[in-house]
Amino acid sequence: MLNFEYKNPVKIIFGKETIPQIAKEIPDGKKVLLTYGGGSIKRNGIYGQVKKALENFEVVEFGGIEVNPHYETCLKAVDVIKKEGIDFLLAVGGGSVLDATKFMAAAVYFSGDDPWDILAKGAKIEKAMPLADIITLPATGSEMNGNSVITRAEIPQKLAFSSQLVMPRFSVLDPEVVFSLPGRQVANGVVDAFVHVMEQYLTYPVNSPIQDRFAESILLTLIEEGPKVLRNRSDYDAAANFMWSATMALNGLIAAGVPEDWATHQIGHELTALHGIDHARTLAVVLPGVMNIRRGQKKEKIIQYGQRIWGITEGSDDEIIDAAIAKTEGFFQSFGIPTTLPDYNVTADTISEIVARFKRQGKSIGETKEITPEIVKLILEDRL
Amino acid sequence: MLNFEYKNPVKIIFGKETIPQIAKEIPDGKKVLLTYGGGSIKRNGIYGQVKKALENFEVVEFGGIEVNPHYETCLKAVDVIKKEGIDFLLAVGGGSVLDATKFMAAAVYFSGDDPWDILAKGAKIEKAMPLADIITLPATGSEMNGNSVITRAEIPQKLAFSSQLVMPRFSVLDPEVVFSLPGRQVANGVVDAFVHVMEQYLTYPVNSPIQDRFAESILLTLIEEGPKVLRNRSDYDAAANFMWSATMALNGLIAAGVPEDWATHQIGHELTALHGIDHARTLAVVLPGVMNIRRGQKKEKIIQYGQRIWGITEGSDDEIIDAAIAKTEGFFQSFGIPTTLPDYNVTADTISEIVARFKRQGKSIGETKEITPEIVKLILEDRL
Repeated sequence: MLNFEYKNPVKIIFGKETIPQIAKEIPDGKKVLLTYGGGSIKRNGIYGQVKKALENFEVVEFGGIEVNPHYETCLKAVDVIKKEGIDFLLAVGGGSVLDATKFMAAAVYFSGDDPWDILAKGAKIEKAMPLADIITLPATGSEMNGNSVITRAEIPQKLAFSSQLVMPRFSVLDPEVVFSLPGRQVANGVVDAFVHVMEQYLTYPVNSPIQDRFAESILLTLIEEGPKVLRNRSDYDAAANFMWSATMALNGLIAAGVPEDWATHQIGHELTALHGIDHARTLAVVLPGVMNIRRGQKKEKIIQYGQRIWGITEGSDDEIIDAAIAKTEGFFQSFGIPTTLPDYNVTADTISEIVARFKRQGKSIGETKEITPEIVKLILEDRL
Repeated sequence: MLNFEYKNPVKIIFGKETIPQIAKEIPDGKKVLLTYGGGSIKRNGIYGQVKKALENFEVVEFGGIEVNPHYETCLKAVDVIKKEGIDFLLAVGGGSVLDATKFMAAAVYFSGDDPWDILAKGAKIEKAMPLADIITLPATGSEMNGNSVITRAEIPQKLAFSSQLVMPRFSVLDPEVVFSLPGRQVANGVVDAFVHVMEQYLTYPVNSPIQDRFAESILLTLIEEGPKVLRNRSDYDAAANFMWSATMALNGLIAAGVPEDWATHQIGHELTALHGIDHARTLAVVLPGVMNIRRGQKKEKIIQYGQRIWGITEGSDDEIIDAAIAKTEGFFQSFGIPTTLPDYNVTADTISEIVARFKRQGKSIGETKEITPEIVKLILEDRL
């Protein structure tokens, strides 16, 4: 096991009819900015529950946060926060709304020249406004971490930052929010959570049986419960298990003491930035390519994954790896998610553009920083 | 899954040569009470490392905290804290030292008449002194929770309290502390952690696959790694995996959303209070009795445990349960820990006394509060 530090102070409030509890979690006298997305919370009744719970607080609303939230939108919100004297942020939505709200929390106190530096240059965050959330879409795990991914539409670029200071003070996880989700969002959520686990699990062995088995616990649960949720959105137990899986997939626990990859995400972000493909779908395309092209470096863990998750016990190492990749693609496809670039009308031209962008940034990625732009090319060509 | 709240803000600093990091974790200017036990930290070099790390702090020492720490000892420490103007507590030791330090942290600000009420009456704690620890014995999990168990020697009574306010600000887990542990402490630590998991796992099913699999992950890892540590105390990886297992066994995570039992602990505490038997050894005696007498109520989970942990697939339900109990006893015995009352020279007289004590307190225990004093009697008689 590698040395590590781990601290996660987010308070999780999990279960049926928990939304009213926000009233006692937000400190008295706070002026709240309620952030949300395209308005689905008004159709599914969550908005009404939130407004009722906040009846003793002064509340300003900021809606219209888009999927893959825009930097430009966040800056507009920062203006509102300053103008209105807001001192608490409550995100009600999925990962996009929460990620945007985290960026607002950091940007409002940013003392540098340009808050874009938080994303582009890793500029240090010294202070952030307290924030919390009611998560309405199990997927990103943003409800129990300090991560945020923001898109600058004009460039276009999709970049991440991370800070303990933007961890939610509390996160309300009511599995009943799943009941009204479209199938596409359930499918994306399952795949997103699944690939989060894979980024922290499918690296190289460091003798970490607890972390490995916890990761496998989440993968097995997503494989069991994901299809149940897709089939019957009103299955509370399946919704709850899916929701808790998504949170546990990216709260830092399974990453503690082990190497992490994240190449699939970094390549996937480029596909979203250039073609607007759903985040989870980019992961479903890229991951099998990473597994195939990095089969040598990831051999031990891919074989362990094949055996423990999919019960593949027969064949040579390469045959087990081939079967594990096929099972993974088949799992994504079973949710109606295509796994090749042509399925999304992406051609070799895009590959050249992505490789050129990686070259310009001069960065290599993956758990050993050995994935050069040339290897990114091989990974994407594998998906043609 | 049941509704739950979960928050665990303890910062874990895990790995080789991490003890010097305490210098930057304790706020500047704090006057530190360094608490420890019988002095093993002076023989194994940890004391020297701690003193060196604290060279820029004013430090007062309070050693001599006994195993099953005494209430009376804690009160003496509280006097020192007040007299010396201490404002930070650093426990260096095992669960006993840390539990005592947690009680000091709460008792020093206790505004009621008698700090014993914290333990005996669940009196509310409004404030606690900040505390941290360097854990030198993987076992109790106290390093990542707000629990504490204290013994009042004169009565004798062993009681627990729990508060978020006494959670450590940070816990240093350096697996190399295991290198100098006596075999008896390793054995006790493995069994203690194992039974902690069982108390949160072996109840009744609530459809919680993540929690179940996480619990099973810890059990399997203890079964694999525990014997390695006992055989070769210098196996760093085994020590690290054992240490992380013990922490994860009782940091609240596997209890989130599921019922908890704790009957084995509550009965075991009586055996320690009356006969001074090592805590872990009382658990090894009582747990098989709880499994046997509660086999009806715990049927589904004992069978799942037998199948997933011990690979028992053949036989009727009762045969699987019998085999699972036998495997559990065999596991404890493989660490040199006897599992019946006569092994500790405890007779039927003690059973009568324990049953009388439960009757006087008028309490029923277990995950459904159905274990009456009469059932405690059956459980203990099963262990004669």
